[in-house]
Amino acid sequence: MQLGLIGLGRMGGNMRDRLRAAGHEVVGFDHHPDVTDVASLEELVSKLAAPRVVWTMVPAGQITEDTINQLADLLSEGDVIVDGGNSKFTDDGPRAERLAVKGIGYLDCGVSGGVWGATNGYALMVGGDADNVAKAQPIFDALKPAGPYGFAHAGQVGSGHYSKMIHNGIEYAMMQSYAEGYEILKAAELVDDVPAVIKSWREGSVVKSWLLDLLDRALDEDPELANIRGYAEDTGEGRWTVDEAVRLAVPANAIAASLFARFQSRQEDSPAMKAIAALRNQFGGHAVKR
Amino acid sequence: MQLGLIGLGRMGGNMRDRLRAAGHEVVGFDHHPDVTDVASLEELVSKLAAPRVVWTMVPAGQITEDTINQLADLLSEGDVIVDGGNSKFTDDGPRAERLAVKGIGYLDCGVSGGVWGATNGYALMVGGDADNVAKAQPIFDALKPAGPYGFAHAGQVGSGHYSKMIHNGIEYAMMQSYAEGYEILKAAELVDDVPAVIKSWREGSVVKSWLLDLLDRALDEDPELANIRGYAEDTGEGRWTVDEAVRLAVPANAIAASLFARFQSRQEDSPAMKAIAALRNQFGGHAVKR
Amino acid sequence: MQLGLIGLGRMGGNMRDRLRAAGHEVVGFDHHPDVTDVASLEELVSKLAAPRVVWTMVPAGQITEDTINQLADLLSEGDVIVDGGNSKFTDDGPRAERLAVKGIGYLDCGVSGGVWGATNGYALMVGGDADNVAKAQPIFDALKPAGPYGFAHAGQVGSGHYSKMIHNGIEYAMMQSYAEGYEILKAAELVDDVPAVIKSWREGSVVKSWLLDLLDRALDEDPELANIRGYAEDTGEGRWTVDEAVRLAVPANAIAASLFARFQSRQEDSPAMKAIAALRNQFGGHAVKR
Amino acid sequence: MQLGLIGLGRMGGNMRDRLRAAGHEVVGFDHHPDVTDVASLEELVSKLAAPRVVWTMVPAGQITEDTINQLADLLSEGDVIVDGGNSKFTDDGPRAERLAVKGIGYLDCGVSGGVWGATNGYALMVGGDADNVAKAQPIFDALKPAGPYGFAHAGQVGSGHYSKMIHNGIEYAMMQSYAEGYEILKAAELVDDVPAVIKSWREGSVVKSWLLDLLDRALDEDPELANIRGYAEDTGEGRWTVDEAVRLAVPANAIAASLFARFQSRQEDSPAMKAIAALRNQFGGHAVKR
Repeated sequence: MQLGLIGLGRMGGNMRDRLRAAGHEVVGFDHHPDVTDVASLEELVSKLAAPRVVWTMVPAGQITEDTINQLADLLSEGDVIVDGGNSKFTDDGPRAERLAVKGIGYLDCGVSGGVWGATNGYALMVGGDADNVAKAQPIFDALKPAGPYGFAHAGQVGSGHYSKMIHNGIEYAMMQSYAEGYEILKAAELVDDVPAVIKSWREGSVVKSWLLDLLDRALDEDPELANIRGYAEDTGEGRWTVDEAVRLAVPANAIAASLFARFQSRQEDSPAMKAIAALRNQFGGHAVKR
Repeated sequence: MQLGLIGLGRMGGNMRDRLRAAGHEVVGFDHHPDVTDVASLEELVSKLAAPRVVWTMVPAGQITEDTINQLADLLSEGDVIVDGGNSKFTDDGPRAERLAVKGIGYLDCGVSGGVWGATNGYALMVGGDADNVAKAQPIFDALKPAGPYGFAHAGQVGSGHYSKMIHNGIEYAMMQSYAEGYEILKAAELVDDVPAVIKSWREGSVVKSWLLDLLDRALDEDPELANIRGYAEDTGEGRWTVDEAVRLAVPANAIAASLFARFQSRQEDSPAMKAIAALRNQFGGHAVKR
Repeated sequence: MQLGLIGLGRMGGNMRDRLRAAGHEVVGFDHHPDVTDVASLEELVSKLAAPRVVWTMVPAGQITEDTINQLADLLSEGDVIVDGGNSKFTDDGPRAERLAVKGIGYLDCGVSGGVWGATNGYALMVGGDADNVAKAQPIFDALKPAGPYGFAHAGQVGSGHYSKMIHNGIEYAMMQSYAEGYEILKAAELVDDVPAVIKSWREGSVVKSWLLDLLDRALDEDPELANIRGYAEDTGEGRWTVDEAVRLAVPANAIAASLFARFQSRQEDSPAMKAIAALRNQFGGHAVKR
Repeated sequence: MQLGLIGLGRMGGNMRDRLRAAGHEVVGFDHHPDVTDVASLEELVSKLAAPRVVWTMVPAGQITEDTINQLADLLSEGDVIVDGGNSKFTDDGPRAERLAVKGIGYLDCGVSGGVWGATNGYALMVGGDADNVAKAQPIFDALKPAGPYGFAHAGQVGSGHYSKMIHNGIEYAMMQSYAEGYEILKAAELVDDVPAVIKSWREGSVVKSWLLDLLDRALDEDPELANIRGYAEDTGEGRWTVDEAVRLAVPANAIAASLFARFQSRQEDSPAMKAIAALRNQFGGHAVKR
């Protein structure tokens, strides 16, 4: 089938390739002239026969909002917009309502898989009405991995991005799990070959996972991780997951700790620990570092 | 080759099956007459030609200690004992030294894989001298999964159990990661079919893992986990991992939080939270539950 | 001076007493006829000479919002409303702007001290313009404790409630600090008289505090806290503090853990721990509690 | 009464002053010739009339162990040794038993108060037999603050150091509570004068404490804590508290997080966060810092 795909970066570009390999006709738009198929959103829409499915794969936030607002003016009743970016789930409902006024359908689709999705397929979690899902189903089928997994119609509008948000919250804590274990293994200096131990866990062990495969791969490239600084960005999903835990009164110490560890990793110095050092100096006369 | 295998419970019994299926001659001993091959450790030793390899697969702690002490009296110079239980790594060195006096080799072998190891193979992390490892290598090769993973000679005596300890610490935190995400998904009541979303993650997603497969399996059996109480035991490895983090000055919030969550799950009431309730009552006149 | 005081519950009623004892003329309004001085907000306003200061001490949220909206219709240019409730700081700016249209000043005032404030005085953190602060200063001076502490003009509108929010986040974690220590002391069964040890810390120790005095007081009343369930409510400030930590990328593990402990204390059963128990059963055959 | 006091550093020196001011005869020994009263332990013992009380105030660990062993050879039946250092509670029992063989009594005394104890008095938590406590009671009475607080006979040998250990665990978490709140206040940039807000909490507020007084004092000296690095040592008590939480299955997220925050503060780079950065690079192509 035809798909309009907006955003041809690391994720969108790979998705276009995977969809074309599956026989779909993808009209891609991107601001980078080297990768775009069309010169404008207008041209993109004009190349698609109604009812159209248009997928946005641009950074969450204002860019996604602007893109969807522009599409709203260009599309027609019966068309469907799929937002595959990491939008906040609270944006989905208002967005769907605005589009519904014009008869345009809306699906929010969480997409997991990173740069490996091109070959492995992407895990897709979709929120929205079943009839809109049906219109985009051939695209979902081509993007997802072969086999029984990798696709879920999670529920109403918002539930796709919600699922992806929680997926990423889990991802943060899984990464932190391996990272803490790795650091203890290193610090103990009892295991001669830490990368070999981690590699051994890739089959047979309870902790085997795709993330572990990637950790092994990273250690193959740089056994001491000597060329990497312990500095980690975070994206909205991790923060929103903690916000949701707070809102819903769910104890989520591991996920929150994983998020806080990333915050810590980016601090040059810690105001909190300055206060601790100041206090120790005040009551115990302990020297402070200056 | 021949192997003496002591302890034929859930783990040891499966391991005997897997080893026999691989063509090895296993002489198994267990206190349960239904499963044992021999009536005593003496008989077990007598059935093995020197140099012997004897594997202990009994509960960590005193039982393992006693078993190895008995074996020390029965075995001869050049024999090797492999402890596959979850012994604390600090027990391994003194144990190896005691055995070395008699010329008996010692290997500590962390074994992961649970009840699934019988078919999938076990991940094995081994500590000890290379020549002792070599004597038991055919056994390791039969127990591990096919393929390049699932076995590591981690280093000196103790490093096998150390690796397994950390493995389990990671396992605790990975389980907690999924568990917290699962609870938020449930609490939000935005996703209609939480098990379907979790199932979708089994392929294509960044969080895919064997533990996730098992979570999906549990949800297939009981989609609301209605028949399971939120009560989780812990075993030594999780605690020792936190102790090691403390000893080595490694920040390990996620693993510690995962252990603490298990402690919490087993409390009828919390003395700490009683104190909190008492304090709130004292300063704010907030009512307490009685 | 004159003060209109709306809300004469546990906090407001005590504040009226303290203000009157200091010689101020307080006109109080409450929906409970037993405690109110006037029958309506209209009557309250009519009894005050312009420029008026009116203090709202009602539950944060809609009730506060409604009360202030009603006051906006009754008050005149040059009057000042002080909100002493635990409003969210993000409500203050819009509220101040709405009032400014009518020339009515607005101050947000965080009030700490609980039921003890009546005698000890209250700690007050105020946000808003200096000229509005000046109009209410005699009231602040009467409410605060004698001596140099207990009052701060924190900054612009919102900064008073912001300061109080953080104050409460700290309070959560301080209470958790004592609570965890208390539980370990109890669990160890090495100290014969845990309340005596806690009492000893009230002078001379680094951990002495007013909260500790209250814990000692609670233990005097009920040495085993036998009549108190480990169940703790939370109010908005704790949650908002964690939300702020997340928004501002501040690692706040202790405060977050303190909030999560309260969530935990209110759960009959934990979906997260059900998932953990289910996983342990799946991989290890560990029994689950039903 | 007479007291032999060994160790005249920051703590011991102040204690000698306070005891002498109270009229006691203190014979102090220290390796620094400028501060010592006697040239040797032998001389110290010779200057005391039996039954003697000798207080050790030297660094916990080997130095304390050696000092007490030397005293054991010099003292006589009926004498009492008080260890006021931060010894681990598990050392107390064996130590007391060794001394009991010679008829020498032993008390373990946790001492809190830091450099301020000289004027404010010290909080003392004592473990050991009541008759030994009675022998040293005049010393305890002089060291403790005036008033009803500041001294507890906690129970059997070990319970004094145990109480002090937990005291310090609480202290870690209280300091972390203030520190996290302080950092959020600073990061928000909504409060103009953060030190003024903290100062206001010193009276009337629920979070008032001696530690808060000290934080205010530190901010008076350096309002931005500009001359202090966010680097905090930890001593044994914090670690042992977490070890005890683990041993006793007590959830202690706030205390553990406080300890881990100090570990983090001392890391140049974090191996765990290197692993996280490596993983993000592997799955998402996210750039790493080098």
